[in-house]
Amino acid sequence: MKALLMSERGLVLRELERPTPRKGEALLRVRKAGICGTDLAIASGDYKIPKPVVLGHEIYAVVIAGDDGKFRPDTRVTTEINVSCRRCAFCKAGLRNHCSNIQTIGITRNGGFEEYLSIPAVNLYKIPDSISDDQAVFVEPLAAAIQLTKMASIKPGSTCAIVGTGRLGLLILQVLKLRNPALLVAVVHKKGNERKARLTKLFGADRIFSSYDDDPELMIRETNDIGFDHVVEATGRPEGLDLAMKIVRPRGTIHVKSTHGVPVKFDATHVAVKEIRIQGSRCGPFEEAIALLKNGKVRVSELITRHFRLDDFDQAFTKAWEPNSLKVMFDV
Amino acid sequence: MKALLMSERGLVLRELERPTPRKGEALLRVRKAGICGTDLAIASGDYKIPKPVVLGHEIYAVVIAGDDGKFRPDTRVTTEINVSCRRCAFCKAGLRNHCSNIQTIGITRNGGFEEYLSIPAVNLYKIPDSISDDQAVFVEPLAAAIQLTKMASIKPGSTCAIVGTGRLGLLILQVLKLRNPALLVAVVHKKGNERKARLTKLFGADRIFSSYDDDPELMIRETNDIGFDHVVEATGRPEGLDLAMKIVRPRGTIHVKSTHGVPVKFDATHVAVKEIRIQGSRCGPFEEAIALLKNGKVRVSELITRHFRLDDFDQAFTKAWEPNSLKVMFDV
Repeated sequence: MKALLMSERGLVLRELERPTPRKGEALLRVRKAGICGTDLAIASGDYKIPKPVVLGHEIYAVVIAGDDGKFRPDTRVTTEINVSCRRCAFCKAGLRNHCSNIQTIGITRNGGFEEYLSIPAVNLYKIPDSISDDQAVFVEPLAAAIQLTKMASIKPGSTCAIVGTGRLGLLILQVLKLRNPALLVAVVHKKGNERKARLTKLFGADRIFSSYDDDPELMIRETNDIGFDHVVEATGRPEGLDLAMKIVRPRGTIHVKSTHGVPVKFDATHVAVKEIRIQGSRCGPFEEAIALLKNGKVRVSELITRHFRLDDFDQAFTKAWEPNSLKVMFDV
Repeated sequence: MKALLMSERGLVLRELERPTPRKGEALLRVRKAGICGTDLAIASGDYKIPKPVVLGHEIYAVVIAGDDGKFRPDTRVTTEINVSCRRCAFCKAGLRNHCSNIQTIGITRNGGFEEYLSIPAVNLYKIPDSISDDQAVFVEPLAAAIQLTKMASIKPGSTCAIVGTGRLGLLILQVLKLRNPALLVAVVHKKGNERKARLTKLFGADRIFSSYDDDPELMIRETNDIGFDHVVEATGRPEGLDLAMKIVRPRGTIHVKSTHGVPVKFDATHVAVKEIRIQGSRCGPFEEAIALLKNGKVRVSELITRHFRLDDFDQAFTKAWEPNSLKVMFDV
């Protein structure tokens, strides 16, 4: 089968043996797989992982053979990305995404940029008929967007800013909008990103700034000079945190979503003096993401930039890097 | 009167006019004033402030003349360091320490390294007779130590590590001990800091590591390889956060207390992946600090390294910089 591997020499397309499911695993035929910011950071070499590994963790697939009665052949599924031991202290405490023996598909275990994927059946979620194949690719990133609301209480009437309106930022924008904030401000990367600016407006941003370099004072003015209760750093770039620190209010919360792998310069003194909270969050609740998509509460079709075949992975990654690009996905 | 100023050319002792209290202010005769890590960071040039200003914000004083009947002449007092407007949105929300028009004594407004200090009477707290003059100097830093417990819930039975057992770290150690943690680990700066190591043991650390360079894996082993629920970064140095990041558990909290003014390198990706919380905290509740000292719950006499006169400020700051030093204070 075809598989797109991250090797010591970068991305390479290889012919691999079809995986043989172990006990408890289901064999999937991957149909769609999205390119995430993390995939780009890995491919660029910034985000270090053990190699070689097949990338890809935003997956839509159909079951070929399941170990579990719940998943008959042809069941449409997506998969949680963390394979956990279900025995360690974290798993027992319900924190399976922080399992001490964790394997993460597309990062430390083969992922979805390959034709066949073997994965524990307990990781799978059925995709309802009302969610299309393309939409199903967004379950994983949408769950990650929802997760930031699990790690910090975002109250109705609060002021929120999103720095970075890319693949993830535009999902977060929609998730925050559902929380009914008094003010929702989004910062698009650069002037000229017309598509992102248009979608940012469509998805309900009350105010849009068109560059990370815009005057932070102007952004804060939107909040009666107080600063934002919540600032989401979703730029996928190391400089995003810097702007977030400038526009968050004293005692406010910065939500860190970027996993670019690059060390950032950080003013810890400012964090102490302003009593700022910085909250990381990562993988989220798949059931809730599926429900939001099923009920049409979150729109994802507008976020699709282009489809590629695995053979054209080079073009796909080049496209995904373009500033105006949103979700680039493989038809596997 | 004598006053120790931070000028563009560094610390200088000057003869200044005795301040004239404005409406609502009390005039104090400063008796004792402690040197804090922030004073050292300012004096070194790392922590930038508008100059010139008289440093010093850990103050014991007696009232000379008060605008307020509560504070008759000779009343023994200490003072909250933030002078707030009591009109802005933060003040109205009870967050006076984040006042939009804040002045901070010893930082943006003249502080306690001078013979006479004029300060709003509302900032003053009476010092009970059972608290000595020297002990009174510790009210402000002890309040700052308590503050970290206000910004995050530290449950009995949790595991806590303190990185840095200096002036502030040894107060935090005692405050955390009162919370009844299951495990309290302290990391002393360097092998050879025998005095700090001895006090760390005396104040109840269950386990002591004797260098920031000790193997983080060995520290984590103390927590059954899970990592610490809470890690306090109180080193006053930029490298402290790095160790804190290595030993905190997934979903754990790092408490940032250092205000060294130096940008630190920071692995934001790790924060996202491990869903770590970084919580800044600064100034705290004076009433609680006074109550702890009054009731003998926190010991501070052991933390006094030496007293100096303002004339000998150079020696005093040199002494305070020594790795084995704890609280150096001025008899003003």
